[in-house]
Amino acid sequence: MSDKDKKQQSHQKKMEKLKDNVDASIAAADTERGVFILLTGNGKGKSSSAFGMVIRALGYGYKVGVVQFIKGAQLSGEELYIRDQCPQVTFHQMGTGFTWDTQDRSADIAAAEKSWAIAEKMLTDDSYHLVVLDELTYMLSFKYLDQDMILSTLENRPANQSLVVTGRGGGSALADLADTVSEIKEVKHAYNAGIMARKGVDY
Amino acid sequence: MSDKDKKQQSHQKKMEKLKDNVDASIAAADTERGVFILLTGNGKGKSSSAFGMVIRALGYGYKVGVVQFIKGAQLSGEELYIRDQCPQVTFHQMGTGFTWDTQDRSADIAAAEKSWAIAEKMLTDDSYHLVVLDELTYMLSFKYLDQDMILSTLENRPANQSLVVTGRGGGSALADLADTVSEIKEVKHAYNAGIMARKGVDY
Repeated sequence: MSDKDKKQQSHQKKMEKLKDNVDASIAAADTERGVFILLTGNGKGKSSSAFGMVIRALGYGYKVGVVQFIKGAQLSGEELYIRDQCPQVTFHQMGTGFTWDTQDRSADIAAAEKSWAIAEKMLTDDSYHLVVLDELTYMLSFKYLDQDMILSTLENRPANQSLVVTGRGGGSALADLADTVSEIKEVKHAYNAGIMARKGVDY
Repeated sequence: MSDKDKKQQSHQKKMEKLKDNVDASIAAADTERGVFILLTGNGKGKSSSAFGMVIRALGYGYKVGVVQFIKGAQLSGEELYIRDQCPQVTFHQMGTGFTWDTQDRSADIAAAEKSWAIAEKMLTDDSYHLVVLDELTYMLSFKYLDQDMILSTLENRPANQSLVVTGRGGGSALADLADTVSEIKEVKHAYNAGIMARKGVDY
């Protein structure tokens, strides 16, 4: 057998094994229902991943709701896009600026409660295929919203509705409730090398 | 001082410190150029994060190119969306199906080279603000494409062009070249609890 044939044979064996593993995982899964995905960790990519899933759902024409619990003074690119190009998405922003900019706990709590009321409507309406609660975890870490009330609403959402929650932390009870948890770890970040945040990439 | 006032004072102090830290990091960054972001790890969210950045760039009207080096037999939601709703995005898929489905090394290499030629065009055209090379890492891990040639092209791309590469692995040379590296770790995944992949969320 030539080297090339050996390589092809070894490659084929590896690929068959990989395919078997992937196929086995897929075959073993037999419950079809909405999933709760928690995207956490200190790395870049949590909110952009959530917006990628928004686009994924829109590709099939599904109804989507997004509530952002923290936002900057300016709209970022994905927010501009959703606002201007996706009128079918119900989109709400807390609109108090970054929490660490306001430094007023009472005002933040009032804003968080108002935004939560909007999220709650989506989480009890089964016409939404996907609900994104961007940076909700901070509302729990800062104790702006009651954890038991939040967890109970998330858990009791319509069976076919999927949910994406993003943000650092959020506590173990939230992670326990989630079906899928990805921790996005910062291995390195451009700004530590003095590179500015990039329009159309970072915001 | 009342308990409430103490809580507000302590909160304000914490928030001021957080704001100072964030502001200091932002102020220290003074180089403006395109960034290379590597999204790796075994967790869910790499490709969806890349597509979130596509939407972010489109929000400002920037030109975007996407090359997918591995794809399933069916178009996923974000691919349908980009194809149908975003004619301004240059979108190419390798189109050989999942590599572990074909099990033919020579055919895979030929397809990888063809797709790379399309990526290379984008990576030498400064009209592209953002280029996404989805699952490129596997072309390196499987040695379908020459690592030195790839790294040199990525490094020498136009200064203002940002780049997102996704996929597990890819080797340390790729990570060294990247400005930002996020490792997406699977903490848990729904399919391990028997829950099927969800249309409009997982694909």
